[in-house]
Amino acid sequence: MREGIRDKVAVVGVGACKFGENWDQAPADMIVDAAYEAYADAGIEDPQRQIDAVFTGSIYSQKGPHECSDALKLWKPVTTVSNYCATGTDAFRCAVFSIAAGMYDTVLVVGYDKPKDRGVSGPSVMMNQVRDLPQTPAGWFALCAATYFEKYGATREDLGRIAVKNHHNGTLAPKSFLKREITLEEHANARMISWPFGLYDCAAQTDGAAAAVVTRADLAKRLRADPVYVKAVSVQAGPNPQKDPSNDFLRWKPTEMAAQDAYAQAGITNPRAQIGVAQLHDCFTLTELLSYEDLGFCAKGAAKEHIASGVFELGGELPVNTDGGLKTFGHPTGATGVRMIYENVLQLQGRAEQRQVKRPTLALSHNIGGHPTACGIAILGIE
Amino acid sequence: MREGIRDKVAVVGVGACKFGENWDQAPADMIVDAAYEAYADAGIEDPQRQIDAVFTGSIYSQKGPHECSDALKLWKPVTTVSNYCATGTDAFRCAVFSIAAGMYDTVLVVGYDKPKDRGVSGPSVMMNQVRDLPQTPAGWFALCAATYFEKYGATREDLGRIAVKNHHNGTLAPKSFLKREITLEEHANARMISWPFGLYDCAAQTDGAAAAVVTRADLAKRLRADPVYVKAVSVQAGPNPQKDPSNDFLRWKPTEMAAQDAYAQAGITNPRAQIGVAQLHDCFTLTELLSYEDLGFCAKGAAKEHIASGVFELGGELPVNTDGGLKTFGHPTGATGVRMIYENVLQLQGRAEQRQVKRPTLALSHNIGGHPTACGIAILGIE
Repeated sequence: MREGIRDKVAVVGVGACKFGENWDQAPADMIVDAAYEAYADAGIEDPQRQIDAVFTGSIYSQKGPHECSDALKLWKPVTTVSNYCATGTDAFRCAVFSIAAGMYDTVLVVGYDKPKDRGVSGPSVMMNQVRDLPQTPAGWFALCAATYFEKYGATREDLGRIAVKNHHNGTLAPKSFLKREITLEEHANARMISWPFGLYDCAAQTDGAAAAVVTRADLAKRLRADPVYVKAVSVQAGPNPQKDPSNDFLRWKPTEMAAQDAYAQAGITNPRAQIGVAQLHDCFTLTELLSYEDLGFCAKGAAKEHIASGVFELGGELPVNTDGGLKTFGHPTGATGVRMIYENVLQLQGRAEQRQVKRPTLALSHNIGGHPTACGIAILGIE
Repeated sequence: MREGIRDKVAVVGVGACKFGENWDQAPADMIVDAAYEAYADAGIEDPQRQIDAVFTGSIYSQKGPHECSDALKLWKPVTTVSNYCATGTDAFRCAVFSIAAGMYDTVLVVGYDKPKDRGVSGPSVMMNQVRDLPQTPAGWFALCAATYFEKYGATREDLGRIAVKNHHNGTLAPKSFLKREITLEEHANARMISWPFGLYDCAAQTDGAAAAVVTRADLAKRLRADPVYVKAVSVQAGPNPQKDPSNDFLRWKPTEMAAQDAYAQAGITNPRAQIGVAQLHDCFTLTELLSYEDLGFCAKGAAKEHIASGVFELGGELPVNTDGGLKTFGHPTGATGVRMIYENVLQLQGRAEQRQVKRPTLALSHNIGGHPTACGIAILGIE
């Protein structure tokens, strides 16, 4: 019987740069902002002595791990991890393993990306050659939305409520990019991107970096009186849904698989009741909606009723994307999973200020990656 | 006190495709060749049930971890690790951590790359903007060779003996690319690439994949009677030597740092006496020469005498690159570190046929990465 990693590792510090169109920053500047905030949060005064290794996640960087070690002048074991949009969560997962293995005491996780410097304004359009399915993210996820609408009777208004919620939450997060409320009417009338997705159904693209200091659970209280413990980390790969004959367009297998694994690790039998706050991958409003169901927050097909009753709003039973999510932070790919951990740590420690939810004991973060062919989940908790 | 990872994890199977200009194979074909050979070697009959996770290393792949999970139809946790030319060793290291952490029982490591499909015939030429140092690999490493020659009186003939040795060893390795002996005279008269490097001082570029099945040490004998145990895994990042004012061009700090760490993990105090076989990163003959010294196989400046006396030849005291190294396998970046582990496992188990050395109890593999800004070392042993 495997012993697992539950409660072996703790998060003792988190940091993030401001997310946005960071034209005035190189990746190194964002990395320094995020890491030094995390150091300060963890009481790390001498990183070269106190940090044993670094796991960094980035998918756009052409420079490899040296970009991070050089920015921080940390001559330590530094590794780049990548897993599509779940890259940040997977870098965190590998860091957790390295500590639980007994190899390191204290490790820095840095997720970052700077897609705005790529010189293109969006994803390229590419048709899948097997089933002629559209392969832009908006085109593909919109197909799933249309199928879901037909099957379960959801409408653009259900998606709109998610956008309105996340825009509201983003106004309360100091480091978010988009800081303005929108109304359901604005959502409905926004220009169409790929039906049923209008402008406000799509996350922005931004630059950003986020960091976490993780350490052995038995050493954590030397650094912080209120450490947050790692209850579960899971990554799952699944078949490409564009080529999977059993794909029903209504659920994403990697999320279902990762949730099952993560809940087993954390001893969660009733996620809706036990999880107090969650950061879900809302690259599109539909992605958040499907994830409510794939993660077992409600039954398949039932999301619209729970959206309507406000379950996932800041004051609701299970607040989701309390900082505004990808909708307002944008999605600098490697950074996103670590940014979610940053928010969950603040929520668990009661430090989330205006967006603080009723003190949770368990917090979940979730990324999908690829079409999706991957999912990453991290569950944190206070003792 | 950290407990470390020594003897917690075992290698129970290894595999590799034939390395070369594999025009008739996609990356997926090479991955399948390597993984299924490793499965067979480990007695894995049902990978979907018996493999808990995959760590894959590749730097040229544009497809991410799905390339590996789709090729093997393994819907498991699959993560891509990258660390320049030390990518394969780092993927192995992360796999070891995941098992030592108690997360997984049995994990597949797959290193692969297919640089021949990039459509270019070699590295691009780029001048470093800070000190105008040449930034092609051959140009840069040649500068180090010139400095070393001046300081320690080594000559092209010393490099030639390394090339002759590795070409010989490669003729005995079924999966190597270049299978012909060369003479010192051929080495001396080969066309110049970047003085003092002639053609035979430079490793070829090839396609390839290698795989290893790793498992919990306490479960290893269920799969193989003669498992090989992981004694140490280390990765170290260092400053870019092209910009490091204290770089003396005679040693590579990441190798010295990683060796110190790995020897401490494995309890090695006299590497020359205790290590029975080693696979070193011979992207150029000079790289192998400097590594003898940086790894403590001989004193700094003393390599040429040890080369002349045959210490590192197949029948010598400490045979190095028993399969012919990068010189004859080429260097499909993500594959190389895992290919070295493949060779070391065969040597430790007495299965290396014509190139078998006197049965070693400890085997070291070593990659540098970047200029080098990184080094990866793995030490394996039999109990």
